[in-house]
Parts: sequence; C-alpha cells; structure tokens
Amino acid sequence: MKVAKFGGSSVADSTQLHKVAEIIQNDPERKFIVVSAPGKRDKEDFKVTDMLIQLGNAYINGEDFNKYYSIVISRFKEIIEGLNIPYFILDEIEHNIHNILESDDTNKTKFDAIKAVGEDSSAKVLSAYLNSLGVKASYINPKDAGIMVSNEAGYAEILPESFQKIYTLRERDGILVIPGFFGYTKEGQLATFSRGGSDITGSIIAAGVKASLYENFTDVDSVYSVNPSYVENPNEIRTLTYREMRELSYAGFSVFHNEALIPAFKEQIPVCIKNTNNPLYPGTMIVAEKKPEEKCVVGIASDTGFCSLYVSKYFMNREIGFGRKLFNILEDEGISFEHAPSGIDDMSIIIRESQLTESKEKIILKRITDELHPQTVSLDRGLAMIMIVGEGLVRTVGLASRAATAISDANVNIEMINQGSSEVSMMFGVLSKDLDLAIPSLYKAFFG
Amino acid sequence: MKVAKFGGSSVADSTQLHKVAEIIQNDPERKFIVVSAPGKRDKEDFKVTDMLIQLGNAYINGEDFNKYYSIVISRFKEIIEGLNIPYFILDEIEHNIHNILESDDTNKTKFDAIKAVGEDSSAKVLSAYLNSLGVKASYINPKDAGIMVSNEAGYAEILPESFQKIYTLRERDGILVIPGFFGYTKEGQLATFSRGGSDITGSIIAAGVKASLYENFTDVDSVYSVNPSYVENPNEIRTLTYREMRELSYAGFSVFHNEALIPAFKEQIPVCIKNTNNPLYPGTMIVAEKKPEEKCVVGIASDTGFCSLYVSKYFMNREIGFGRKLFNILEDEGISFEHAPSGIDDMSIIIRESQLTESKEKIILKRITDELHPQTVSLDRGLAMIMIVGEGLVRTVGLASRAATAISDANVNIEMINQGSSEVSMMFGVLSKDLDLAIPSLYKAFFG
Repeated sequence: MKVAKFGGSSVADSTQLHKVAEIIQNDPERKFIVVSAPGKRDKEDFKVTDMLIQLGNAYINGEDFNKYYSIVISRFKEIIEGLNIPYFILDEIEHNIHNILESDDTNKTKFDAIKAVGEDSSAKVLSAYLNSLGVKASYINPKDAGIMVSNEAGYAEILPESFQKIYTLRERDGILVIPGFFGYTKEGQLATFSRGGSDITGSIIAAGVKASLYENFTDVDSVYSVNPSYVENPNEIRTLTYREMRELSYAGFSVFHNEALIPAFKEQIPVCIKNTNNPLYPGTMIVAEKKPEEKCVVGIASDTGFCSLYVSKYFMNREIGFGRKLFNILEDEGISFEHAPSGIDDMSIIIRESQLTESKEKIILKRITDELHPQTVSLDRGLAMIMIVGEGLVRTVGLASRAATAISDANVNIEMINQGSSEVSMMFGVLSKDLDLAIPSLYKAFFG
Repeated sequence: MKVAKFGGSSVADSTQLHKVAEIIQNDPERKFIVVSAPGKRDKEDFKVTDMLIQLGNAYINGEDFNKYYSIVISRFKEIIEGLNIPYFILDEIEHNIHNILESDDTNKTKFDAIKAVGEDSSAKVLSAYLNSLGVKASYINPKDAGIMVSNEAGYAEILPESFQKIYTLRERDGILVIPGFFGYTKEGQLATFSRGGSDITGSIIAAGVKASLYENFTDVDSVYSVNPSYVENPNEIRTLTYREMRELSYAGFSVFHNEALIPAFKEQIPVCIKNTNNPLYPGTMIVAEKKPEEKCVVGIASDTGFCSLYVSKYFMNREIGFGRKLFNILEDEGISFEHAPSGIDDMSIIIRESQLTESKEKIILKRITDELHPQTVSLDRGLAMIMIVGEGLVRTVGLASRAATAISDANVNIEMINQGSSEVSMMFGVLSKDLDLAIPSLYKAFFG
C-alpha cells in the first residue's frame, strides 16, 4: 500500500484535480491520499491558506472578514463546478467556517482551525470527485484517522500513540482521502503543524500504515543538485539517502520541510518526489541506503543569515570546561548553535542571525567577557553556509580540495571550513554576498 | 639590557662554555644570563639532569646512588678542569648535593632539589669562568633573584609578585648568571618548572627586567618551516609572531616548550633564537607584530596521538544545550578537548589520546549513550593533526585550496578540516600513518 501526498499546486484547480484523480486510479496501491490546501494557479495567484490566515486575523481584530471569506468560497466554488460534483460540498465548507467562528473556543483555537480549512476542504472535494468517477473513496478526518498531536497550536507535534491507531486504517475499504497540516489534541481540539505541514501528515500516515512507498506529488520533475536560481537547468537527483536529504533541506533546499520526513525515515519507508504534471517521470527516490557505486556528491545547498561568534583565549584548550561554560551561556540565553569549530586558543560558534537581536548580542558578548575573561570576543554577521552533500564523501580522496579550489577559482575567500564532523557533508562558510560566485563554480566542479 | 639563555648543548662541556663566554663578552647588553644543565655532547651522551633524576630515584628507593653521583660529579670535574677555574666550585657542587639529601625535607622536595642541581651548578661554573676571564659576573640564586613560584614540585608556576623583585636586578653590578628551571615557594622551598623549564626562567627574567631582547641560544641556526625529519634542509624562518609560534610549537615544534614564552609575550619582549655554534647567524626573531608584506604561510607543524570522538543525533543543532551536556561529561571525566567541529546532526571532538585510557573511553562512551541518547557514538584513534600557520592566512584567497590539493595529491584522505576558527592557522586531520606523505607534499606546495 502506498501513501500519495498532493501539494498545493496539485489541487489548485479542477484541471489539476483531474490529473490527481488519474494518478490515483493508475495505481491500485495508492490507497492513502493526503492533500494540501489549493495553492497558486500562477505566479500572481494567492494561496487559499494565506486567505484563511487573513480571514482569521480580521475576525480576531473584529474587522470585516467577508472579503477573504468570499475569496476562499469562490475558489472552492470554481473547483467544485469545474469538477462537476454535488453542490452540498460547498455548503459543508461554508458551515465548517461558520461553526469554527461561532464556537466557544478561544481565538487561538479558532484561528488554528480556520488555517486548516483549506486542507480539510480539499480532502472533501477530492473524495467527492473520486466518488463521482465511480471510485470508492472517503474523506477521513484526522481525528478519525488517529492523528493525535501535542497541544501547541501552529507547532503541534505527533504523539507516539497515534501510529497504532493509524495502522488500523489499512483495514478500511476503498481509498482514504486525508487532509494534511493538522491533527487533534487529546482534549479533541484541532491543532496545526508548522507551515508546510501537509508533508508531515503524509509522512506520519506513511509511517503509521507502514506504506511500501510514500509518494510526494509536487510540481517539479525531481530534486535538483543545486538551487536553480544559481544555475540554469541543473542536474536532477535520481536517488538520495535520508541523511543526504536532511543535510540538503537543512541548508535551504525547499523541496521539503526540514522535519517532515522524519516519521517516514524512522520506519525506513522509501519516499518518492514526483511531478503531478508529469507523473510518468521517475522523479527522485529518497531511501535509507545507497549502492556503493552511487556514492559521490549529490547536491550543493546553501543558506544565508548566519553569524560567527569568535572567542579567543590563551590556552583555551588546556582549560577543562571552557567549551562547556561557553555553551552554558548560550543555553541560558536560549541560543542554539549550528557549528562550533575550535582551534587551540580560538573558538568560532556559528549561529542563525535570526536568533540574535542587537540586545541579545550585547548580553551574550558581555556575559562571555565577564564570565570567561577571553582575550577577544566578537560577532560577525552576513555569513552564508554552503553544504556539499554526498554519501561516502568523507572517504573520497580529493573532494575537499576540489571544493576549496572551485571556491577560490571564483575568487571568493573561504571564511570557514568544517569537514569531517559529518559523514555525508562538507561545510564552507563564505560571505553571503559571494554566494552567487561560489555556487556556480562549485556546481561546475562537481557536475559541470 | 638583554637576557641570554643558553641551552643544555651550549653548556655541555668546556669547549661550548668558551663559546658562551665569548658570546657574552661580544655584547655589553648581555647582562642577564640564564643557563640549563649540561646536555649531551653527542648522540650517545647523557644529560646531567637525567642522571640526577636517576640519583634521586635511587636515593628515594634506598638503592645505591653513588654510580649516578660520580657520573654527575665527573662531568662537572671535566668541565671545571677544561675551563681551568678554581676547584672549590666542585666542592660546592658536592656539598650542595649532600646538603639536599641530608636535609629534613620530604623526599618529594629533595627529589625536586636534586633535579635542579644541574642548572644550579652550570650557573656557578659559568660565573666563576667569567670571573677567571676578568669579567665582572656573579651567580644569582633564583631565591635571591626573586623567582617566587607556586608550591607544585615539578609543575611550579611563577607568582605575579615576582616580577617587581626581578626588575630590581637591573640595579646590580656586572653580569648576573641565573640557573634556569627552578624557583622558590613562599615557604622558601625549591620547586622546579615542568621539563624544559630553563626557557621559562629566561622568559620570566626577560619579562621581569623588561629586557630589550630575550636571546635563546640553542644548537640550531633558526626555526625551520617544517620538521626536518620530513623534509631535507627546509626553509628557515626569519620572523615569527608570538601567535604563529604558539600554534607551531603546539603541534610538535620542539624548539620551544609550549608555555615558555608566555611571560615574555605578555611584556611584548622580542625573542631571538640563535645558535651558540654560529652566533653571527641572524637566527629567528619572534615578535608581537609583523609587517603586512611578510604575511603568508610561515610554517607547517604536525603532531600525532589524537583521537576523534564522534557523536550523531537527529536535530542535534535544534537541541539547545546538547553541546553543553556533551562537554559537561568530558569535563566531569577530566578530559580537555582540542577541537570540536560540529555539523547539523553530528559532532566530532578531537582529544589527545594520552588522556583516554581504555577504561576512560568505556566510561565516556557509556555516559554519552545513557545521558544524551545519540544515534551513534564512536571513537577513532590514530589521528594526526597538521597545522598550517601564518598571519593573515584566513584572509588570503586560495590557501585552503592549495593545502587541500597538496594533501590529496599525496593521495592522502583528509579526515578533518578545521579552518576559520583560528586567525593564523588551518588544521587538517589525517591518519598518522599518512603524515610522511602529506607533510612533504604540503611543504612543496608552500615552500617548494
């Protein structure tokens, strides 16, 4: 049995939903279907979820929300007419919104429930459409599916006990269409995952029903070995390991929500990224293990918005506990670090700039000065991290030199190299402004 | 006023002491002379301090120590006869040893005092010899010189209050000959520095008297840019900064005892390494600042005996406090780390193998497993660290690539790169067995 998840662009309008229905019918193994809210139909278009957020905010602020309400409804009206399915689905959607707003729940809970209307409605629409085609399918509410989550609206996390209940879905008849993005707390309250959470739902269902494959239908033919904004039609990746995917998506690869795949990974379920508009195309497989001969660099990812906290002190490395004290200060201040290369008398800690407000920076620098008495302490912003990712990379002679040479050939200075800590990646720090020089040069070196 | 320190080979016999006396007379600025114990005269020879250690051990174990005693005495007899200076010096040396052994001190204190007899006697001999040449010179006992140290026999550290007293030595008449390697506690007990401690004494005196120069006379013409055991007649270093020296001597450069220069550094006193057998040769200057045009790679150092503790855990970098907890365990177990490169889900901690007994290893791996619940934890031994050192190195485009390329050209795999944490060095981890391939290739790349 397979789980197929369809993203926002795949359910954006009736034309797309025709493709979805066809894809589902083309493989009897596709029993569990997870859907996002309707996304953009073109660059200028809006996402239904964004409209729902506007609606929610307007409602909470006591402003007129009808504008957004009617935009949402008319989008679904269009879809329902396009699919030529019974009109009562639209009534259901309208009632659903009214029930949420008129309930006695707190505004926070109402807001979260409104945000989830897009996915919920998509699921209702798709199952109705499948029925209209004579396919046995039913809408399954996440509560009914057994998706129990922690009580953190907007950041809910799956509760381990959910998976047993989800497994029983295998027994149900026909195709099950489940809305992505949300679950229910033990108290029965709706709570959404973080944004992009439909991937999480798909991954959770795949893990729960122990699917043979988790198909993630999106609008790209495959995962690319580098961000297409840096290189024209870059190389497509056929196979990725979970670890490679983790490192790539960490450093700005947007195919996936960073945590989304973890539940599937834990159950060793293979994942396939496919294109709804080109379903016969192989796409990209994400698997636990790779054949040795496939081992090499698969991708180059990069992300900006890092800063480097530099601390130097004579005989730091003789001072047992220095590292601990430094990390202690960061922990006290609620700062998590990304990497911490250290020398003999020096240590650099790479931190996401988003974590460091000006005031936070002052506090941390002061505490380090007062508590650790370093020779120097300073903070540099505007750093970018480049990740070169591939299984077996650490054991391949010459890769580091090829990478470093490519970067300096682009006449870019390497601010930092962190190699050997990870088994599957090498990290290079450069100034953000130099990324568009460094990345194409690296791509050429490894894929050109 | 200059401080000149003469090492073991410079005071090994009367021929060498002739050279020393000449060097001292050739520059009236050379007022403060610090001497080591007589060292080896040739490869097969013994060092007086080693014999004294044997003597001390034999005495403590109640064994016959006369064998070692007479070896020591006959060496000084030879020197005294060679220099043709009064015989009572030898009696003084003999009385000194007897007084130590017959005192009521603890064995620990006696042992430390015996260890120091070599330097103390050298100083007495040299001042007597200078006098015999008509040069006004006097032996200054470290207590009299004001060298007050912490009460840690064998690991004594200078007490800050010493320097004021030492400064008053400037007022004394003539040349002052001070034995290296030891000082006295507040209780008036003799205590030695760690081995190689004559460098420390010289550095302390230089700092105390605010010398214009600290000359360190040894048996090499200069500091070399790479260990001559890897490369034949390597490039000589004319000028080094303190920071460069620190990083070089850290990674196996044996010219200096790692901490020796710190007191001189703190007072910004320039240091010169010279050859007693070739005193007109410029040698190597060690200074606080360098001219920009001199900035580039000055040396390549390496050291073996490292191991890498590898820990991986999903979302390590999201887990605030993970690094702190890990360092906490190491601190509890009394382990200091050298470097700690970390990735997204991985962290490698480089530790000196000498710190990790098999049992210690077991304890640490178990604690990490039990307390941090990682996916993986492992320890790899047999690592070597290569340091490429030079001011301005981090800001020079292409150096990292040149280094990495040189290593892979030698067909050596790079286990680890740590660049950017230190301002003046890049660190590469390779397997110890590969050092003799990697180092010559790196030397060729930067100096060939």
